[in-house]
Amino acid sequence: MATAPARPGEFELIARHFAPIAGPGGLGLIDDAGLLRPGRGFEIVVTTDALVAGVHFLADDPPGSIARKALAVNLSDLAAKGARPDGFVLSLALAPGWDEAWLAAFAAGLAAIAAEAGCPLIGGDTVSTPGPLTLSITAFGSVPAGRMVLRSGAKYGDVLLVSGTIGDGALGLKVHAPDAPAWVAGLDQAARDELADRYLHPRPRLALAQALQAHASAAMDVSDGLVGDLAKLVTASGVGAEVDLDAVPFSAAVRSAVMADPALAELAWTGGDDYEILCTVPDEKYSSLIAAADAAGVPLVRIGRIAGVPGTVLYREAGRPREFARGSFVHF
Amino acid sequence: MATAPARPGEFELIARHFAPIAGPGGLGLIDDAGLLRPGRGFEIVVTTDALVAGVHFLADDPPGSIARKALAVNLSDLAAKGARPDGFVLSLALAPGWDEAWLAAFAAGLAAIAAEAGCPLIGGDTVSTPGPLTLSITAFGSVPAGRMVLRSGAKYGDVLLVSGTIGDGALGLKVHAPDAPAWVAGLDQAARDELADRYLHPRPRLALAQALQAHASAAMDVSDGLVGDLAKLVTASGVGAEVDLDAVPFSAAVRSAVMADPALAELAWTGGDDYEILCTVPDEKYSSLIAAADAAGVPLVRIGRIAGVPGTVLYREAGRPREFARGSFVHF
Repeated sequence: MATAPARPGEFELIARHFAPIAGPGGLGLIDDAGLLRPGRGFEIVVTTDALVAGVHFLADDPPGSIARKALAVNLSDLAAKGARPDGFVLSLALAPGWDEAWLAAFAAGLAAIAAEAGCPLIGGDTVSTPGPLTLSITAFGSVPAGRMVLRSGAKYGDVLLVSGTIGDGALGLKVHAPDAPAWVAGLDQAARDELADRYLHPRPRLALAQALQAHASAAMDVSDGLVGDLAKLVTASGVGAEVDLDAVPFSAAVRSAVMADPALAELAWTGGDDYEILCTVPDEKYSSLIAAADAAGVPLVRIGRIAGVPGTVLYREAGRPREFARGSFVHF
Repeated sequence: MATAPARPGEFELIARHFAPIAGPGGLGLIDDAGLLRPGRGFEIVVTTDALVAGVHFLADDPPGSIARKALAVNLSDLAAKGARPDGFVLSLALAPGWDEAWLAAFAAGLAAIAAEAGCPLIGGDTVSTPGPLTLSITAFGSVPAGRMVLRSGAKYGDVLLVSGTIGDGALGLKVHAPDAPAWVAGLDQAARDELADRYLHPRPRLALAQALQAHASAAMDVSDGLVGDLAKLVTASGVGAEVDLDAVPFSAAVRSAVMADPALAELAWTGGDDYEILCTVPDEKYSSLIAAADAAGVPLVRIGRIAGVPGTVLYREAGRPREFARGSFVHF
């Protein structure tokens, strides 16, 4: 007589570390599948992001930070689409040498952001890999039917806006990674800490989702760099854009880095890992979008307008045209 | 003036190879997210499986077979839950050295099974990894609200059944992998081909989904081995089971391998990669389940009953108790 379960290790680890993060749709994480129960009249927005150690984060980053980032980048997509988070599934390929302490810290970070966002775990798969730690999260959110905010909805004449500040993540990676460049030493400790934190712990703009859903004509999150992501937005929408680079919001930390080395502005505009919202709004809805963003506590500022040749973006810095050789992070 | 898109390589590859697999919910694969539009009164079953080269398939397997397997193992979960496929997202971490010919063959295999199953692509993420090729697919299916077939629904007295034949996948891996064991040479070529094909190309039992949803009290797919997976089913249901191993259906190819080497029966019962359905049904619904399975063209046979000490399975072979030291494939 064989005593079940046959693989107590895997089941115990899931029960101990992941089941506490599960919502009702996770069915205790003991089934082959989870359940989404959409509200009547709602559609489900689905987004997926893969992260590989050494590519999207550093293998020795704190495990809780890795977990937080993996879910945050997906929540950022849901926010940009105007969706309210409903749940997520986690696919985890563990690299050789992991131990339960690592897994516990990973799960604790995941539990924290899942609770903050109201986005429970509803399923997953855990396997081993001889390669680097690899995670893939697929997240789900609800929008009223037909109300997902698309990339492709920008119209000529619309105002172009961005939330928060741009460049912190890209400069933060330089601060955080080994062999920091010389300019890092010129920053004060508070600025270094802030930038590294913005890289390690993206803050998805879920508070903005409702405002976008109600007012924006198009939106996407800025993950691969403002310049590269705006190129995608104008291409998807079949429009062009004009951007005043001086209007792109920088944090105090980025401003002081750029002051010390003006070349860093390009890294800020193109580097990625911002997880801010890039969106467009028709003139007549501009005030209501700004009011809703204010009410949500999220800064949203005008950086340009939808105009010009379809598929192109005209950038101006101090009134003069500015070109970018490298648009954004290239995945492969 | 920067010309968009900034990353023509990635966009062109997606447009060329993946957009043709996309359904309406994929929004042309140019947005941050896809959409699921559940029918009124339906819930969405969500399942996810990760596959790593060298762990779940061989790195030099035909790319179309890798793609087919990655989706098939998820479709198998949907079938076991009684769900009708709605779509899937693909997370693909490409290993060094991939080229467009590989990607084209991969996408062709994916397109074929997606079309067969009526399960279109609705989104994804493609990244690079310094490690082995890693895929994660999350698939979605519909069931009428409250009708997902659970692992945990088995009741004392229920009949225990399994679809198709067991062991082909596990023996097929031995045939297919380098350094085949001696017994492989004793099989005729047709048997070798059939076993390898069952390993390379799992056939999800989607045809059985409706019958399970209408009649079964519990179900799961057999992916980690019949013995290990039955242990999970009885644990989830809080019941025990008795199994007549002589009733477990073997294909002609597995029968001839076991005839040559009787020890292979244990590999067949425990080895996994079957992607058959293990299910339970109350006595009074047994005939209608069998009739529905017949109508669907899927063999479904009785192998035992729900009985005995909760969390345990009593196996009998030729009337004598039989124990298993190793229950199923251990993921980590």
